[in-house]
Amino acid sequence: MQNQDDQILNFMVARKTAKMRRRFLFAFGGLLFTSASIMFAPDLALANDATSPHAVSITKTYSAVATRIIDAAIADNEAMDKMEALCLGIGHRLSGSPQLEKAISWAVDAMKADGQQHVHAEPVMVPRWVRGQESATMIAPRKEPLAMLGLGGSVGTSEKGITAKVVVADDEDALNALGDSVKGKIVLFNQAMPPYTVEHGSGYGTGVYFRTHGSRLASKLGAVAVLVRSATAKSLRSPHTGAMRYGDAEVKIPAAAISLEDTNLIVRLVKRGETVSVNLKMAAKNHPDAESANVIGELVGSTNPDEIVVIGGHIDSWDVGQGAHDDGAGCVMAMEAINVLRKLNLRPRRTIRVVLWTNEENGLAGGKAYAKQHAAELSHHVAAIESDSGAFAPRGYSVDCEDEARETVAADQLKEIISLMQSLGELKATVGGSGADVSPMKSAGVVLMGHRVEGSTYFDYHHTLADTVDKVDPKLLSQNVAAMATMAYILADMPDPLGTTTTPMGTD
Amino acid sequence: MQNQDDQILNFMVARKTAKMRRRFLFAFGGLLFTSASIMFAPDLALANDATSPHAVSITKTYSAVATRIIDAAIADNEAMDKMEALCLGIGHRLSGSPQLEKAISWAVDAMKADGQQHVHAEPVMVPRWVRGQESATMIAPRKEPLAMLGLGGSVGTSEKGITAKVVVADDEDALNALGDSVKGKIVLFNQAMPPYTVEHGSGYGTGVYFRTHGSRLASKLGAVAVLVRSATAKSLRSPHTGAMRYGDAEVKIPAAAISLEDTNLIVRLVKRGETVSVNLKMAAKNHPDAESANVIGELVGSTNPDEIVVIGGHIDSWDVGQGAHDDGAGCVMAMEAINVLRKLNLRPRRTIRVVLWTNEENGLAGGKAYAKQHAAELSHHVAAIESDSGAFAPRGYSVDCEDEARETVAADQLKEIISLMQSLGELKATVGGSGADVSPMKSAGVVLMGHRVEGSTYFDYHHTLADTVDKVDPKLLSQNVAAMATMAYILADMPDPLGTTTTPMGTD
Repeated sequence: MQNQDDQILNFMVARKTAKMRRRFLFAFGGLLFTSASIMFAPDLALANDATSPHAVSITKTYSAVATRIIDAAIADNEAMDKMEALCLGIGHRLSGSPQLEKAISWAVDAMKADGQQHVHAEPVMVPRWVRGQESATMIAPRKEPLAMLGLGGSVGTSEKGITAKVVVADDEDALNALGDSVKGKIVLFNQAMPPYTVEHGSGYGTGVYFRTHGSRLASKLGAVAVLVRSATAKSLRSPHTGAMRYGDAEVKIPAAAISLEDTNLIVRLVKRGETVSVNLKMAAKNHPDAESANVIGELVGSTNPDEIVVIGGHIDSWDVGQGAHDDGAGCVMAMEAINVLRKLNLRPRRTIRVVLWTNEENGLAGGKAYAKQHAAELSHHVAAIESDSGAFAPRGYSVDCEDEARETVAADQLKEIISLMQSLGELKATVGGSGADVSPMKSAGVVLMGHRVEGSTYFDYHHTLADTVDKVDPKLLSQNVAAMATMAYILADMPDPLGTTTTPMGTD
Repeated sequence: MQNQDDQILNFMVARKTAKMRRRFLFAFGGLLFTSASIMFAPDLALANDATSPHAVSITKTYSAVATRIIDAAIADNEAMDKMEALCLGIGHRLSGSPQLEKAISWAVDAMKADGQQHVHAEPVMVPRWVRGQESATMIAPRKEPLAMLGLGGSVGTSEKGITAKVVVADDEDALNALGDSVKGKIVLFNQAMPPYTVEHGSGYGTGVYFRTHGSRLASKLGAVAVLVRSATAKSLRSPHTGAMRYGDAEVKIPAAAISLEDTNLIVRLVKRGETVSVNLKMAAKNHPDAESANVIGELVGSTNPDEIVVIGGHIDSWDVGQGAHDDGAGCVMAMEAINVLRKLNLRPRRTIRVVLWTNEENGLAGGKAYAKQHAAELSHHVAAIESDSGAFAPRGYSVDCEDEARETVAADQLKEIISLMQSLGELKATVGGSGADVSPMKSAGVVLMGHRVEGSTYFDYHHTLADTVDKVDPKLLSQNVAAMATMAYILADMPDPLGTTTTPMGTD
């Protein structure tokens, strides 16, 4: 999951009222598909006989096939093998790194070996930020190495580093109150990330603010570098990296995250009246853009192959850990979802397209490029689902569409589809939020969807050395594959495209 | 908490049947104290009037003062300030390090400043193992730095390190089954530590076995080095150090712990048929013994100052983190327990002696030296309590005595005393287990006690970079101070020494 705050807002904060301009665009498009034949799924003959209102027909029509897909996915899939091949065989894969290109080649090869169609890579230029050697060391009142990770996009320091006194700011008001005393200092941002609750989810939106903006804000007051409390609520001396942005900063100063423990060390020493000094060394450098690619693979539709249901995750990761939950899991779920369907000889009316976006973490070049390169096709994209929250217990799907009326219809339809997945847990349809990589398709009216999972631990591992494949439970991964395969199949096969209905509106 | 398995067995495993040889030694000693005056606790006048059986009198006699101690400790104590001074101001403090000697000086100064009596340091020679630069890097099938910590006592490697293929053993049978294939290899011990349960406690006894013995066992089969899965059930790529022993090994080979994630990486790659090679570099060295000291401070008894109740923890720690739960907390609880009593002008009949042992972690020199240096006094030690499990929610006290009859009486008495502490939670008296540093006093018949706390997270932090003061909850720390102050006071003041009774045995 990326870290640019416009995406975070998309994801985390209550959505704004959608514009209604595309309300009727797809409303009757579903008529095109009502006579679709089902070549590979003879037990779906009912689909063509559906005469009851749409709201009833989805559930009735797809109950048997949903069970068949779920049972098959739970019984046997290659998701964990794919996770291990990616996470253990290749490891982390930051944009611009050889590992990312290795992962992209692996994904192409794996989908070809699975027998997927139209498997190819679509070139995208991506930023290339290289961390290099780095360290942060408290040198007064006593010497202590700090657990740190430089932030993606940050400039580096000279070889001997920056040594300065530390001032602490818990929030932006506190920073501004420091005024001139910030000049020549290292600012430590100590804004705590609220712990996860079922009601409010993670506190990531709060926790990540100074990671993104701290350097710009402190630079304006004359700071020489920035340390940021890691965006997490739990820590075993674990620094969390992620992207930062200089925005309109006139002077670019280096920025690094330190662990909660190290933050606490400095904050308490300062409170006890000690003068704390830190030496920060970072060899980080922004290089010219590098070649990368989105990866595509398809289960081509039987009767309406030009109509597309996109499912996917992002193939890049940060340059620590293995990018297992973020977002190897999302990629593998999508790859394996169509693999399960193909092995069942289930081919829906429309095409299910797996897209593994590149460069979600520090630029979103892959998501932007996909929307641009496929602009002519987007009116035929009936849904785009991203999974980028890990492979924890599945919790359902969110829907997000500029056309509020369509979104409302889609949410009702998702509710019906999800009612067929209750063997996978308490899944729900929710409104608002999708995924960073699909968001560039929003203005084209595509119905965006987020694959949702239980969220209590995702941000413990997120962007750390600990986002590794041992944290992925094979059973839960299979449940996610089952949910995504079922959802993708029904969305690609149901007579009316998601968010539209042949039943006159208001009489359903 | 230390890591030598004889101590672990003391702590973790069901105790052996105690010898009965000292059964009657203290049985009637309590008569000496029945006319004791109470100089600083006028509200304890009842103590002298107690005519009911002992079992009743403890509760009745000390109810008011227990409440007074607990309320005072909860309302105001300096434990957190002491924790911060030790953990933030000094940090970790391995035997032989300047930091340990700084901590010892700090403890002496702090107890003097508190107005404690007979404050002094008692010299002890301790081992001096120095970690130096170290690293472990997987070099095949791909390059990946491993999160590692060399084990205390291990020899080092040459500058270029040891590079060898890795073989994996889940247990000793698996190691032996590898036979000749171990020769020239690095053995990775992959024995999982069972997670904590309320019923069985931590799985540390199992988790720590190969950390202690792995090097010796692998060396016998011709291995060139040992990697050990860290002794923990939770990890965010967190290696756990601790002591190892060469025992009768003819060839000493280096040993390091790696994180659960790195263990998993190697184990799964091997299972997938990959050949895994690792380079291990350790500059670790065992130096000649260094000077250190146990720290003593007393609240001298009013009428029987030569009778001693020892309370304490160990002042040394591993050379990572801050030694906060292990065992800064134990030291501070004891220091603050007598401080709370002194501020209340409560002086019990007997002396409460705070002992902060040195070198618990890798040698137990402090515990052994105390028992030796105070051998002549041990018959007057009526109890020795160690706290070495962190400052989590207090859970009561365990008792351990070679004289089983005395132990039984003591357990009953502890139950009564603990009944006065129920405002601090559900505290219990249990039989078996105490602490490593008090264990050398066992053969002298001293009643050993363990200060028990809730144990579900202790081993997440134990011997890691994450054992830091931010993990210590000030409220729980205060509750522990309250419990220890109350327990120490009553043990030092009650008419009969712990485990003895003036009531004829068998009629109580």
